[in-house]
Amino acid sequence: VDAPAELTIETWSERPDMARTINLNADLGEGIGDEGFVRDAALLSHVASASIACGFHAGDPAMMRRVAAAAAGRGVGVGAHPSYADKDGFGRREMTLAAAEIETAVAYQIGAMQAVAALAGTPVTHVKPHGALYNQAARDPVVALAIGRAIRAVDPALVYVGLAGSEMVRAAEQLGLAAAREAFPDRGYAADGSLLPRTAAGAVVSEPADAARRACRMACDGEIVAQSGTAIRLRVDTLCIHGDAPHAVAIARAIREALASAGVAVVPLTAMRLAR
Amino acid sequence: VDAPAELTIETWSERPDMARTINLNADLGEGIGDEGFVRDAALLSHVASASIACGFHAGDPAMMRRVAAAAAGRGVGVGAHPSYADKDGFGRREMTLAAAEIETAVAYQIGAMQAVAALAGTPVTHVKPHGALYNQAARDPVVALAIGRAIRAVDPALVYVGLAGSEMVRAAEQLGLAAAREAFPDRGYAADGSLLPRTAAGAVVSEPADAARRACRMACDGEIVAQSGTAIRLRVDTLCIHGDAPHAVAIARAIREALASAGVAVVPLTAMRLAR
Amino acid sequence: VDAPAELTIETWSERPDMARTINLNADLGEGIGDEGFVRDAALLSHVASASIACGFHAGDPAMMRRVAAAAAGRGVGVGAHPSYADKDGFGRREMTLAAAEIETAVAYQIGAMQAVAALAGTPVTHVKPHGALYNQAARDPVVALAIGRAIRAVDPALVYVGLAGSEMVRAAEQLGLAAAREAFPDRGYAADGSLLPRTAAGAVVSEPADAARRACRMACDGEIVAQSGTAIRLRVDTLCIHGDAPHAVAIARAIREALASAGVAVVPLTAMRLAR
Amino acid sequence: VDAPAELTIETWSERPDMARTINLNADLGEGIGDEGFVRDAALLSHVASASIACGFHAGDPAMMRRVAAAAAGRGVGVGAHPSYADKDGFGRREMTLAAAEIETAVAYQIGAMQAVAALAGTPVTHVKPHGALYNQAARDPVVALAIGRAIRAVDPALVYVGLAGSEMVRAAEQLGLAAAREAFPDRGYAADGSLLPRTAAGAVVSEPADAARRACRMACDGEIVAQSGTAIRLRVDTLCIHGDAPHAVAIARAIREALASAGVAVVPLTAMRLAR
Repeated sequence: VDAPAELTIETWSERPDMARTINLNADLGEGIGDEGFVRDAALLSHVASASIACGFHAGDPAMMRRVAAAAAGRGVGVGAHPSYADKDGFGRREMTLAAAEIETAVAYQIGAMQAVAALAGTPVTHVKPHGALYNQAARDPVVALAIGRAIRAVDPALVYVGLAGSEMVRAAEQLGLAAAREAFPDRGYAADGSLLPRTAAGAVVSEPADAARRACRMACDGEIVAQSGTAIRLRVDTLCIHGDAPHAVAIARAIREALASAGVAVVPLTAMRLAR
Repeated sequence: VDAPAELTIETWSERPDMARTINLNADLGEGIGDEGFVRDAALLSHVASASIACGFHAGDPAMMRRVAAAAAGRGVGVGAHPSYADKDGFGRREMTLAAAEIETAVAYQIGAMQAVAALAGTPVTHVKPHGALYNQAARDPVVALAIGRAIRAVDPALVYVGLAGSEMVRAAEQLGLAAAREAFPDRGYAADGSLLPRTAAGAVVSEPADAARRACRMACDGEIVAQSGTAIRLRVDTLCIHGDAPHAVAIARAIREALASAGVAVVPLTAMRLAR
Repeated sequence: VDAPAELTIETWSERPDMARTINLNADLGEGIGDEGFVRDAALLSHVASASIACGFHAGDPAMMRRVAAAAAGRGVGVGAHPSYADKDGFGRREMTLAAAEIETAVAYQIGAMQAVAALAGTPVTHVKPHGALYNQAARDPVVALAIGRAIRAVDPALVYVGLAGSEMVRAAEQLGLAAAREAFPDRGYAADGSLLPRTAAGAVVSEPADAARRACRMACDGEIVAQSGTAIRLRVDTLCIHGDAPHAVAIARAIREALASAGVAVVPLTAMRLAR
Repeated sequence: VDAPAELTIETWSERPDMARTINLNADLGEGIGDEGFVRDAALLSHVASASIACGFHAGDPAMMRRVAAAAAGRGVGVGAHPSYADKDGFGRREMTLAAAEIETAVAYQIGAMQAVAALAGTPVTHVKPHGALYNQAARDPVVALAIGRAIRAVDPALVYVGLAGSEMVRAAEQLGLAAAREAFPDRGYAADGSLLPRTAAGAVVSEPADAARRACRMACDGEIVAQSGTAIRLRVDTLCIHGDAPHAVAIARAIREALASAGVAVVPLTAMRLAR
């Protein structure tokens, strides 16, 4: 008989809490003005953590404060969502920076977010890179470690949110930082656990019911089903909802309901038992 | 006989330390690349505090780190030098922002500077606004207080550097922040203690010997001589050297020598007895 | 008997075409990514002219090209929508620039728009300033003339779109440029013909039927009813729909239908008989 | 006997004018304020063409106008010097853009430069990409052609300035644009005719006499001596002086004198017989 099409990227041990808690995060503060804030406000009702754009790919100080204040008002944890300096490309264009440049640009954004969050009366709990910076960090340890060193220099208590099974998680561990292993119910995966490029077929899951099913499997079973049908076993601490997707609010609601039905509580990052 | 043309803006009490210590600060990180750094490096040999551009009117994360590291290496204190977001106008163009917008933009820049300074292994000791933001804060309590609230929210131990005798000093006092009262040996003054606009005759003192004479009078006698000849009596805690002036290094050297001859020690802001 | 509450800002002569043609314009390219483009695409079905953000308050080269190409594909005329360099404030914050700085910044944006429009295969027909630049130009002849000189230097055949009855129209006339006198069915007016500040009560008309009624009165009768009830008589060549308003598409549709019922054709700026 | 260490990248035919005319260009408008303009003004006395930064890696509308006006006043031709949007990295960091994004960003900058030059009363004669965009275009035909299509869409009479022997020259030829083949007396070359990376030993020639000797050999003999000692035979139409190099003015002067001694006239690009 054939072995099951299954790939265990990290050693999988018994984890009795797995089926019971998960973090849900969204990328926010990426729109403009009152209108840009409408969806953010709606998403804040569904997630436990908000990763806020820091002005390099989107956002500006006023929007950062507005989202941070709204998050604080609903008990949602605030994180920095740093990017390459690329507003024209929404931070989705790959760039070649020296490791020290990445360290510095990421530290700059974390510090800016901390200060603006302080004005909004809330601390920063985590750091999640955006776009091309995230994707390059997932596969390149030089980038992943540069981000980690920035986090450690600014505040070693900040959680480093990165793609489950990727170099980001390894970098966090190497630097002694808490890592939150992230999965994307609204994105398609390759069989090696990397995200499909946005231009590939199946890269974006836009049907809320599909995203909810995938979210439950990620949260309850620690399994991600790749485009090829292969099931990848991965510990997952946090699920991401893309705030700039058209059906983001419907997806968030569907995921929340599915998790509730499955008996999984959505909790802050600080309530998860994270790798360190 | 006519009374002397003299104007006491703040009540003047005996201050026996006045003739013995002063802080010297320069605005740095406002150039580009290796060349932009040459003068900064030279000035760091002469000053005790560096106010570093935070990317809003000049500078970028890499230059902030480079200057902060060089400052730390010479025992020079590091400060944030926040501005309106106006690279095209070098932050010298007046803008009309809501007080909350000013608070947020200033906090953003202080936090960014703190984080980059952390990477460079040095703390941030003070905040000195730049250009139009400085000038508007000097005369408008709404602006001065917004800056002060940003400082207080991020770190109430930071020193608020502002024009001696201006609304900035009053705002710091009102908010319980330490204020460093600043004077400009290389700039001309109006009789009310405000700086002459850069376009006015006599606005810029470019002769090092002149600047040095003015610096001594400011540091030793607490006197600024206005364009009109009027002597203005003002407590001064720190003297500024504009890092972007052509003869900045010569001016810095001349001021250092003149202060030394007069028995005035140049000390960190933290060694000054500041108003609070 | 009391005289009617009416104010004629420009001399009103018989204009038999008034009731029959009007231009309808929208400010576009102010959103981000695919989503930002959705409403733009919808509005392009209703307007005859598109004023496209040039990257100073919103937009980027790729979005400029995308909107210009979509406009060209529907026979909609393309214009530049220059602003102060103020992405953080969406160009809505007043700034103090020298006249030469305004000239240069506006010329820069017009030229950029022309070149991007050339890639999209369509010419640029008009220039309409944005936000604070528009408002300052409406009341300050120095600003209005600086914009006009930029237009004239780049291409004197470009139409200068400005607030009906304002300094912008006078500046265009003085410089020999064609002026399109603009009115805003979705904005409230003061009795002197200026727009109410966005923060004032009644500043924004969000009900499509109201906006449509106001549009017809502007187009058919040359009358704008101010907040106070006063009717202001003004020649109007073009009506603006704000692309970033939540109900922009519904407002555009309602205005189109109301104008059609009233027998008013919506035509390109080049088909209007403009003041020069 | 060993064959000479020589590499002919382009077919070399007799060119009797080669020893008699050459264009000399500098990259300008890359500094800040009055000081940033000092060296630009000095260089304008030595070169025949100025490539002006367009605000993406350096520069701003006011500086563009200032340099263009100064160039016009000395009979120096004005060109656009477009870059990736990367002020933090001075345009020297490689980026991954879609071809259409490059086209659009380059067109934007050319148009902006044309409009600002119009205000300064001078036409734009050429386009020379900057930094990482230049280097990527030299080796990648997709990038080189995207730049060429932008030039052709905006104005097919503009000269495309690119690295001699590179994909840029081929792209210009393929698109029917005039190409000016550029060489760098102040930069070291690899044996394949590409520039050494700035971080490599020998990448920068800072001794004016060395640069002058190399310039003469390039202009008179069509030869570039690579780091390895290999002589590369290449037609050269224009020699570049980097405006941001510390000894730029001394290098420019030395090159001018050496060319004069060798009987080579420095002429505008329009006076060169360019490949098309």
